[in-house]
Amino acid sequence: MVKIPRSHPRYWSLYYRERIIEGMERGMTAKAGLIAHGRGEAFDYLIGERTIEPAERAMRAAVAKFLLAKHPVISVNGNVAALVPKETVELAKALNAKLEVNLFYRTEERVRTIAGELGKHDPDVEILGINPTKRIPGLEHERGKVDEKGIWRADVVLVPLEDGDRTEALVEMGKFVVTVDLNPLSRSARMADITIVDNIVRAYPRMIELAGELKNLPREELERIVEEYDNEKTLSDVLTYIRDRLGRLAEGGIWRRKRL
Amino acid sequence: MVKIPRSHPRYWSLYYRERIIEGMERGMTAKAGLIAHGRGEAFDYLIGERTIEPAERAMRAAVAKFLLAKHPVISVNGNVAALVPKETVELAKALNAKLEVNLFYRTEERVRTIAGELGKHDPDVEILGINPTKRIPGLEHERGKVDEKGIWRADVVLVPLEDGDRTEALVEMGKFVVTVDLNPLSRSARMADITIVDNIVRAYPRMIELAGELKNLPREELERIVEEYDNEKTLSDVLTYIRDRLGRLAEGGIWRRKRL
Repeated sequence: MVKIPRSHPRYWSLYYRERIIEGMERGMTAKAGLIAHGRGEAFDYLIGERTIEPAERAMRAAVAKFLLAKHPVISVNGNVAALVPKETVELAKALNAKLEVNLFYRTEERVRTIAGELGKHDPDVEILGINPTKRIPGLEHERGKVDEKGIWRADVVLVPLEDGDRTEALVEMGKFVVTVDLNPLSRSARMADITIVDNIVRAYPRMIELAGELKNLPREELERIVEEYDNEKTLSDVLTYIRDRLGRLAEGGIWRRKRL
Repeated sequence: MVKIPRSHPRYWSLYYRERIIEGMERGMTAKAGLIAHGRGEAFDYLIGERTIEPAERAMRAAVAKFLLAKHPVISVNGNVAALVPKETVELAKALNAKLEVNLFYRTEERVRTIAGELGKHDPDVEILGINPTKRIPGLEHERGKVDEKGIWRADVVLVPLEDGDRTEALVEMGKFVVTVDLNPLSRSARMADITIVDNIVRAYPRMIELAGELKNLPREELERIVEEYDNEKTLSDVLTYIRDRLGRLAEGGIWRRKRL
């Protein structure tokens, strides 16, 4: 991994960029995953590289929904494994959810490498998706494979950094779908039941905290949080946030400005 | 290259994504170039994947400036060579400009591969940057290398998809710097004298057309075009364009909307 000085103003962005490149070199992240990461960087830049209020609201509802679920499952792909392997394992524990490796560009070797990476952070963790026997209706063969004990029977699924077709197919199967996606306009963002527009490297640690905060609440309280949540409003609030920020920059002028 | 059906609604975006991946596999494009391409995709999506008016205005001024230049140079990097090798050679001819391969992650092999790619489209084309002997002040050794007959003596340079540090260093050297960058907030976009916020796959063909339209104008007319151009206004107009588009989407609502 390229060594980046901690003092660099873009340290964290460059650090995770190197993590994604390393993920590709280690056979976890697909080449198209690098391009997807770049799209995320652009949207993260637009929201100011911090967790904005609509994302906090979405995470709270998502955690409440997971704590209420019968068969909660968290999906893991190559970008997730490169960026937040440890946090993924911790979040699954905090939410009592199963973990399933589920890849858009599935190869058995990538599945095994990702499972191995997760196992480093907890050798006893159960990883589903190694031998998937079921298929999501409406998706091509390789892209539709899911684990009978995982996504297939899940009532609530978290599919972070997910392809739009797959998110939509899961919604059509009747699953309650939560996604983490920095692009509020992506099809995943538009189709999910709860859309967390945040960088996964900030979202997962915050969701682990929220799980600790909410886990002792009575069910009715958790149900109220989920019921009051409005994903339409969340998405509009995110767009409005970016709109206002761009409006201020346009008015102030950015030409030859050293910092924004 | 993965075969994409022409009927796919995202055909062109997927096509150029595959071109960039192929560019990496062929040793022209750096891994970080894939991530940069993703950032571009995100901003292209925000401007609606079409050439907007402020970009047309910037291209017109840029072409006029190039036609007036004494030593115009067009820089080529790994992403440019993967996306628009033919158009790069054609644009250099149309603007009577020299071509220089100039890489952020310079290796001799990448330089040679890129030069070879450009040569396919015109075996007689002169490619500078193979043996650069000069250095841009203020940049580290490898990143600062430039050709004495190219960027070093140039009065006007086009540095598309360029790193912010390098754009800024060229401006500080007193060059007139034109960039093509989909991110209006990037440091390159903010620091250049003329910033074309457009996808290079649309910008270069349009600039070749504009060169044909403007080349017979009297010098005073070209000088007037350059003088009247205002890059501060261009950048603000681009931000306002994106702001208004996001505002409309926020008001209309995007949740569960199949198309935007």
